[in-house]
Amino acid sequence: MKEIKLAVIYYSATGTNYQLAQWAEAAAKERGVEVRLRKIKELAPMTAIEANKDWKEHFENTKDVKEVSLDDLEWADAYIFSAPTRYGNLPSQFTQFLDTTGGLWFSGKLANKVVSGMTSASNVHGGQETTLLSLYKTMFHWGAIVAAPGYTDDAIFSAGGNPYGVSVTAGKTNLDEKIEKAVAHQVKRTLQLAKWIKNGSN
Amino acid sequence: MKEIKLAVIYYSATGTNYQLAQWAEAAAKERGVEVRLRKIKELAPMTAIEANKDWKEHFENTKDVKEVSLDDLEWADAYIFSAPTRYGNLPSQFTQFLDTTGGLWFSGKLANKVVSGMTSASNVHGGQETTLLSLYKTMFHWGAIVAAPGYTDDAIFSAGGNPYGVSVTAGKTNLDEKIEKAVAHQVKRTLQLAKWIKNGSN
Amino acid sequence: MKEIKLAVIYYSATGTNYQLAQWAEAAAKERGVEVRLRKIKELAPMTAIEANKDWKEHFENTKDVKEVSLDDLEWADAYIFSAPTRYGNLPSQFTQFLDTTGGLWFSGKLANKVVSGMTSASNVHGGQETTLLSLYKTMFHWGAIVAAPGYTDDAIFSAGGNPYGVSVTAGKTNLDEKIEKAVAHQVKRTLQLAKWIKNGSN
Amino acid sequence: MKEIKLAVIYYSATGTNYQLAQWAEAAAKERGVEVRLRKIKELAPMTAIEANKDWKEHFENTKDVKEVSLDDLEWADAYIFSAPTRYGNLPSQFTQFLDTTGGLWFSGKLANKVVSGMTSASNVHGGQETTLLSLYKTMFHWGAIVAAPGYTDDAIFSAGGNPYGVSVTAGKTNLDEKIEKAVAHQVKRTLQLAKWIKNGSN
Repeated sequence: MKEIKLAVIYYSATGTNYQLAQWAEAAAKERGVEVRLRKIKELAPMTAIEANKDWKEHFENTKDVKEVSLDDLEWADAYIFSAPTRYGNLPSQFTQFLDTTGGLWFSGKLANKVVSGMTSASNVHGGQETTLLSLYKTMFHWGAIVAAPGYTDDAIFSAGGNPYGVSVTAGKTNLDEKIEKAVAHQVKRTLQLAKWIKNGSN
Repeated sequence: MKEIKLAVIYYSATGTNYQLAQWAEAAAKERGVEVRLRKIKELAPMTAIEANKDWKEHFENTKDVKEVSLDDLEWADAYIFSAPTRYGNLPSQFTQFLDTTGGLWFSGKLANKVVSGMTSASNVHGGQETTLLSLYKTMFHWGAIVAAPGYTDDAIFSAGGNPYGVSVTAGKTNLDEKIEKAVAHQVKRTLQLAKWIKNGSN
Repeated sequence: MKEIKLAVIYYSATGTNYQLAQWAEAAAKERGVEVRLRKIKELAPMTAIEANKDWKEHFENTKDVKEVSLDDLEWADAYIFSAPTRYGNLPSQFTQFLDTTGGLWFSGKLANKVVSGMTSASNVHGGQETTLLSLYKTMFHWGAIVAAPGYTDDAIFSAGGNPYGVSVTAGKTNLDEKIEKAVAHQVKRTLQLAKWIKNGSN
Repeated sequence: MKEIKLAVIYYSATGTNYQLAQWAEAAAKERGVEVRLRKIKELAPMTAIEANKDWKEHFENTKDVKEVSLDDLEWADAYIFSAPTRYGNLPSQFTQFLDTTGGLWFSGKLANKVVSGMTSASNVHGGQETTLLSLYKTMFHWGAIVAAPGYTDDAIFSAGGNPYGVSVTAGKTNLDEKIEKAVAHQVKRTLQLAKWIKNGSN
């Protein structure tokens, strides 16, 4: 049985998706999986960051989290991506990272990677579904395999029933145990699929 | 100033979208607009309907609501569509109706109609966003003009903040005054856009 | 090594998607896989069918193809779906079939099925991409695993480079050897993924 | 009759979308409309640009095109956006610009702006449809009004029949007169809708 390696890659401005990513990391570690937790590089100017107290604080607090590199994509068998919505699409920080993957894509190294996504929005229905579909669209171009949770566990229903991935309304008070459990299930499912594919394809 | 004519066209199995449609009808009438409330024909076999008490009851209760016809599409300047999700897409009853519009489409009669959609799902995030985008995709093929609410009124935020249209979790207890107000705003916005277009294009 | 069972399920009015489906069936059989080729039930009234010579002819010619049943979904490990666009979405015949799967879905029997889609439109860009994404959206609700081709083979580039699945402009003259090869690759990829998942999960 | 102001806003790496944007500008000027042609700021490092001869050349050739600013969004009544796909989504340069519009959005200044999009991909079906839908999704969040061409003119059929907007396969040889005419129609339709809305809403 080959070992699965997981990269949890997130972008977070004020901490919601960082929390989701940390839960994903913890759930994977609990399963004995090697995990890299990586943040996506901030592109916004310091003036923008400093104008928002929560953003500034989060930015400072996560200075030590390693920034994602293309090597992380190549290294891992599976990715958990987490990022807030920006008008129903992914944040530019996130797409900027995706835009640098042309070389890996061209050489076929992103094919059959297993991927699952999480997201947040300010409103209850402010892009929780559509942002994940934007991500998965790109994954199809990569030839990656999407591990959407569907309704494969009761934890999904309790967390809002988003079949595309865990999604929350931004803000710490919405990050409760139900969400944490849904994240853990999504990680479990992603790793399981990655294991099947890795064992089969090697 | 030309008068606007509105068709409120819905499919409902157990009543949620019928309620949304009735609120839309009432909001339009309050503005002195001529409205046709029309149900989409049921395709499911009676055995399926009768196996579900709520469905059966709703089916019986709405026997007198007129079924939508192609003439309603031609007659109206604007449409409010309401339908529950089926796995993130529109119900087949609804798409079956859309599939009969080829003649109207071919003769250009659907172009510049103004359209807005509402939806429901069993889960909080069970297709509330993606179902509306499926509808709007078809509207682009028609050359219709989508009047998505965006965040043009506080009522939208209170009702869950879905910028694509009013959406609810199915079930009567979720159909409160906040939703009713968001429906009224969506109708107002749709009629306003229809009026601008009708006055301009004639 | 467990044997994979494939269901090729299509809806076709005038024959384009039937041809795609037949190529998929042939490609799977060549790999020694047990295949069921199944058509989706026609819902249109005979008057509509008879008003279109090509539709009528195709309808008559395929009278002997078996209609898909829920049992086919349960039986197969993987599905190849093929259907033309209707304004960027799936035809109502197709969604009507999908709408009957609630029981299978509820009991978890559609989770981890491997799925890939093909489509056609009258125009070059008349829904070739968006129709497949509508299908995959529903697959996420099912918990199925999408085997989109991405750019995993040169055959995809030659056939138009649609990473979501084989797509063609409707009409026999557009169904050439390049398309046939892309179909064969898509089937191969789908079966491969299904094999990995079946072997892993059992 | 109020005058319409149009902003043609594009991102282009090697020139395809710049050509589309120039055609849009010309078509608008021919109608006596005040136009601002604006490029979106390049984010890629010079090393990336210089590694690609065509990109470098285009970068140098368009140094004098003004970069878009938020003021352009506020000033114009209508926008024509043009950008290549990146895996079915918008390029990060483009989304980065969109991500800076929060202030305008919050103050309601983007509501009722009329918008239409154009795009390109390396393959025939490499995101020509899905990229435009990503753009329009964001437009719904803005409360903007999408002027998708649909099938409102023969020029659309000739240019590939993309109802969401003009789309091309990247490369100069694909930019022929049919595309130019489809761009002109899309601009005409966008301006028309903008005029109706501006006259109505003021």
